[in-house]
Amino acid sequence: MPKLWNQTIEEHRRAVRDTVLETTAQLVAEQGLRAVTMSRIAEQSGIGRATLYKYFPDVESIIAAWHESQIRAHLDELAALRDRPGTPGERLESVLERYAFIQQQRHGHGGELSALLHRGDHVAHAEQHLRRFLQSLLAEAAEADHVRDDIAPDELTGYCLHALAGAGSLSSKAAVKRLVAITLSGLRPQIALSDHTPHR
Amino acid sequence: MPKLWNQTIEEHRRAVRDTVLETTAQLVAEQGLRAVTMSRIAEQSGIGRATLYKYFPDVESIIAAWHESQIRAHLDELAALRDRPGTPGERLESVLERYAFIQQQRHGHGGELSALLHRGDHVAHAEQHLRRFLQSLLAEAAEADHVRDDIAPDELTGYCLHALAGAGSLSSKAAVKRLVAITLSGLRPQIALSDHTPHR
Repeated sequence: MPKLWNQTIEEHRRAVRDTVLETTAQLVAEQGLRAVTMSRIAEQSGIGRATLYKYFPDVESIIAAWHESQIRAHLDELAALRDRPGTPGERLESVLERYAFIQQQRHGHGGELSALLHRGDHVAHAEQHLRRFLQSLLAEAAEADHVRDDIAPDELTGYCLHALAGAGSLSSKAAVKRLVAITLSGLRPQIALSDHTPHR
Repeated sequence: MPKLWNQTIEEHRRAVRDTVLETTAQLVAEQGLRAVTMSRIAEQSGIGRATLYKYFPDVESIIAAWHESQIRAHLDELAALRDRPGTPGERLESVLERYAFIQQQRHGHGGELSALLHRGDHVAHAEQHLRRFLQSLLAEAAEADHVRDDIAPDELTGYCLHALAGAGSLSSKAAVKRLVAITLSGLRPQIALSDHTPHR
């Protein structure tokens, strides 16, 4: 049964790859980028150096692959929130909140790693994907009157992404939630100014 | 009258300095950073190279000084808008709109220049100044019920600065104005959800 045999090899390769990615991410988080070598990664992953080199040519390529898998996992997570039951407004809210928490976590990686990570083509690609994704969710929410329709969804998308990037400098979960609440207020359908002039 | 004489020298020095800064900024904008040399700057400024070196040691220091003067001019401009007559809400609106247009212009400088510019201490200092400035204007506007008071002014400041940074990727003035409008909506006093549930 060659097919099953191939599947087993494929699963094995994927397991090794995943272990290497996780180990590397952990080593970088603990010791910083400069301290991490191919030898350390092989040792910590429990495989030989020669085997490691069959998978990846250098540390940078492992980190890029790890980052790519992180981005993919985040996009999948956001898509799952979008596809849940609920009104477009509710689903938009959970997507934006999750996105803001991802921004907060991401910032934890520190400068040297994010400078390295943001070079790759896969980042530009993922950003485009995210923009299209949010844009269609915002259009859907505008259609349902949960989001303002006086401004085009692509401009609302740009606003959301920039405003929520601010989560990167917030330290508490509560502050992130407040940022999401402010950002959502900006997205709400606007009523005539005379209707909501504040009264003391 | 040594004092007057000193004043004249001071004025002359300032005029030369300003000419050098403006000339350099123009050369960089036209020809890119790499093409600009001390000789070209001296020539275009109409002064000798030896004189130029009495003012600045290298091109980088001229660009840093030019950037510092730009930042100072922008902060003065924002302060003038804040100090105009009008309600805190109106003054906040004109400050934020001007800030967004500054972000849009700044982006026009392109990558190599802004990478160089954002290293200096003066940038961090100006950012702090801007944050404090906006924070007190937001507090004043919240006091007058033009801005929500359920979220602290420093968090509202972070929200504004991030959201309006999005102006850097917008090409039209109209789009910048729409971004300012969205951002302001996020700042408005929040009314109970039941009061503004949209109706079809």
